[in-house]
Amino acid sequence: MDARRPDGEQAMSGFEAATAVKRIGEGRYEVDLDGDFGFAEALNGGYLMAVLDRAAVDASPHEHPVSTAATFLRPAKPGRAELLVDARKTGRTAATSLVSLVQGDRPVVEALITTGTLTGAAEPVFAGPAPAADVPPLEECTSMLPAEGTEGFAGQVDMRFDRSTMGWLDGTPSGRPEIRAWFRLRDGYAPDAFSLALAVDALPPVALNLGSKGWAPTVELTWHMRAVPAPGWLAVHGTGRLLSDGWFDEEVEVWDSAGRLVAQSRQIARVGTGARK
Amino acid sequence: MDARRPDGEQAMSGFEAATAVKRIGEGRYEVDLDGDFGFAEALNGGYLMAVLDRAAVDASPHEHPVSTAATFLRPAKPGRAELLVDARKTGRTAATSLVSLVQGDRPVVEALITTGTLTGAAEPVFAGPAPAADVPPLEECTSMLPAEGTEGFAGQVDMRFDRSTMGWLDGTPSGRPEIRAWFRLRDGYAPDAFSLALAVDALPPVALNLGSKGWAPTVELTWHMRAVPAPGWLAVHGTGRLLSDGWFDEEVEVWDSAGRLVAQSRQIARVGTGARK
Repeated sequence: MDARRPDGEQAMSGFEAATAVKRIGEGRYEVDLDGDFGFAEALNGGYLMAVLDRAAVDASPHEHPVSTAATFLRPAKPGRAELLVDARKTGRTAATSLVSLVQGDRPVVEALITTGTLTGAAEPVFAGPAPAADVPPLEECTSMLPAEGTEGFAGQVDMRFDRSTMGWLDGTPSGRPEIRAWFRLRDGYAPDAFSLALAVDALPPVALNLGSKGWAPTVELTWHMRAVPAPGWLAVHGTGRLLSDGWFDEEVEVWDSAGRLVAQSRQIARVGTGARK
Repeated sequence: MDARRPDGEQAMSGFEAATAVKRIGEGRYEVDLDGDFGFAEALNGGYLMAVLDRAAVDASPHEHPVSTAATFLRPAKPGRAELLVDARKTGRTAATSLVSLVQGDRPVVEALITTGTLTGAAEPVFAGPAPAADVPPLEECTSMLPAEGTEGFAGQVDMRFDRSTMGWLDGTPSGRPEIRAWFRLRDGYAPDAFSLALAVDALPPVALNLGSKGWAPTVELTWHMRAVPAPGWLAVHGTGRLLSDGWFDEEVEVWDSAGRLVAQSRQIARVGTGARK
């Protein structure tokens, strides 16, 4: 990992440092989880996946986490955690490992991660249409940076939200399970596989627009990296299909500044208190 | 598992027998994989997931495989295989285990499976619209049953395809990554969690309609059970977003005869030979 910035100054960025994994043995890594990438309830799931993906890629001959299927067992806490990477198959075009994030001797996140190498060169054989609704221009979007400044998640991640999808903030949820936003890291970290892992779980739960309230713990999230992202803002489109029986799904597509689909995800989560009112 | 039919006659149906798992120890099961649920290249991935889901549910206090995230490492062959179920967390509303299908001492499929209990009673808080295109009425659809009768996958699974999505069969792929079909098991097995696992991977690869040829090995498939399906035909809607760099995604929604979304999946697969022509 090259921690030198283009200006020649050596400095590991906030996101880079927060996701850095240190190899401490065969298939074993340690990480110091950064509380700034989380909320009161738990560290962000996308941040945790970025950490797991770094360990998987480090242990693999391939460069990109093409598929990450993560199950979230318990809230992760800031501080030291260990990663166990168990290679299940290492092939010429893809390698799969089971990666476990362990804290206090208990598994916190488990993921089946398949790495491969995306060339970034070939034109797609087929590319579906862009999402029906664009994210509006940056200057028409709203930020959620707290008045007090740069503490916590919003201090690390710069998101500019489509106002029409943020009615839940002031008690007027749209009734449509959609949230759209621009995404970048405040420290200038350029989009890559690991920031995509963060981006697919960075939106507030789309169920907030259905009257759901509070934290919506992700149970399972699978995301696929589809292309190496271009520099610049990422457009993050979140939707959902069904809120029923206490469960809801959320689909996220991430499009890069070159107009390409670079990541896609689906998660299934428990609804927050208040959704059944 | 009750193998008695309502008519009192004891008979385990084709699908029930083909997916039956026998507990042989703590977290250990064996299964006799049935070659009729496969093709020359390998057994069907949905069939294998049904087997893994049966083992996960048997070992869990919960009834339904709400989330199954499966990675396919090697082709499975007909005959004996062993299942290892490693409980990772057992909670009040959900339980997660890692389930491995092992054949000849090698892992063939690995899955993180979260079980829960869907009540089937509550009205959804939100249900998205049905897919844009209906599957046409049965009598307008086409079957792929081979002339010689009921051997193999098509002899077990009765699918009636929307002709407009089957142009690839006679060399005129539509150019749209879509395949739609009605689905049921020929033996009369009623829709349930395990037949949904089969249904989400029963369609021919949607990439065939993009000029892709031949077998498209699934690398990863995650499916979510969203409701207990009603009796009758299932409508299976397959689409895709991107075929690039040798990878393509396929999304499947399964709707039951009561018009409810009962399962949703996404898989990522390698394209078959010929796609890059």
